[in-house]
Amino acid sequence: MRRSEVKAAQQRAAELFDKAGIVLSSSEFDNIEVASFGLGELEVQGLELVTYVNTDRYCAKELVLFPHQTCPEHRHPQVEGEAGKMETFRCRYGKVFLYVEGPPAEVIQSAIPAGSEPYYTVFYEISLNPGDQYTIPPDTLHWFQAGAEGAVVSEFSSTSRDEFDIFTDPRIERMPIVIEDI
Amino acid sequence: MRRSEVKAAQQRAAELFDKAGIVLSSSEFDNIEVASFGLGELEVQGLELVTYVNTDRYCAKELVLFPHQTCPEHRHPQVEGEAGKMETFRCRYGKVFLYVEGPPAEVIQSAIPAGSEPYYTVFYEISLNPGDQYTIPPDTLHWFQAGAEGAVVSEFSSTSRDEFDIFTDPRIERMPIVIEDI
Repeated sequence: MRRSEVKAAQQRAAELFDKAGIVLSSSEFDNIEVASFGLGELEVQGLELVTYVNTDRYCAKELVLFPHQTCPEHRHPQVEGEAGKMETFRCRYGKVFLYVEGPPAEVIQSAIPAGSEPYYTVFYEISLNPGDQYTIPPDTLHWFQAGAEGAVVSEFSSTSRDEFDIFTDPRIERMPIVIEDI
Repeated sequence: MRRSEVKAAQQRAAELFDKAGIVLSSSEFDNIEVASFGLGELEVQGLELVTYVNTDRYCAKELVLFPHQTCPEHRHPQVEGEAGKMETFRCRYGKVFLYVEGPPAEVIQSAIPAGSEPYYTVFYEISLNPGDQYTIPPDTLHWFQAGAEGAVVSEFSSTSRDEFDIFTDPRIERMPIVIEDI
């Protein structure tokens, strides 16, 4: 991603944090992570986040999704004998449609990103409005998409090791994010 | 505590959550925990909280302090061979003065609850404004007090086992909370 694209996405994420009433420090603002997963279509498939803390015992992040932006399907496998990451998503602002393994919804309320249909395979749907939360068990496939106003979601979890995440889409590289300085 | 006192404290806590822009579900609202630590002076020494999630791997809570309300000094010891609870406090609204083990401040910015002076022994001071956070290591004595507007604080931590907390004040019982239905 170009540095200008990253900056624009950080600014847009900051506006959603502001709508959610969430205060960031200036260094957190400067370091909002912008993940496009190497797919080159941030608006469609991407995620913006701030990691508040990530220790060997627990992790807390704040996630931002732009309107209809999708975090692609993935799971958190066992790492070095420790069970995969368990995580709780709590919606703070906007609306999120979360999909996990389980009986599929007959009709889902979000739209699978065009051209990536083969890489979305789980359709048990959970709708999260502000104040709603859902805990995803370890090693469970999941993906999520914001509604029309975007969303801010708190993530409480066991230790985060993003580099071990397994995405259904083989084109995806979660790490590292390369910023082209142009 | 009388049920009417608990209800009034829950309502007051809900108003501070609202000021912080934090949305609770109706069942979370109905179950806001009101802790007076058996001291009978909730306004001075007490804490209001909602536990979002507490698994065998991590925990997340939202804490409320009324103006100048103090959570008494305590530590989280090792339990069944597992290191004591590690916790990160992130201020969301208002101001919190947090005290932990370390070089004492020459003058502290909060007031030790009258009559309980012997039970406050650590005075390394950290001021937390919205967007500021601090991580307290396991088994470390700490206490905290809100500023004049009260405070809302997110707590991210390892598994919470409140019943094992060790308070400096021997009069304190953290658990259980007895509600007198009068």
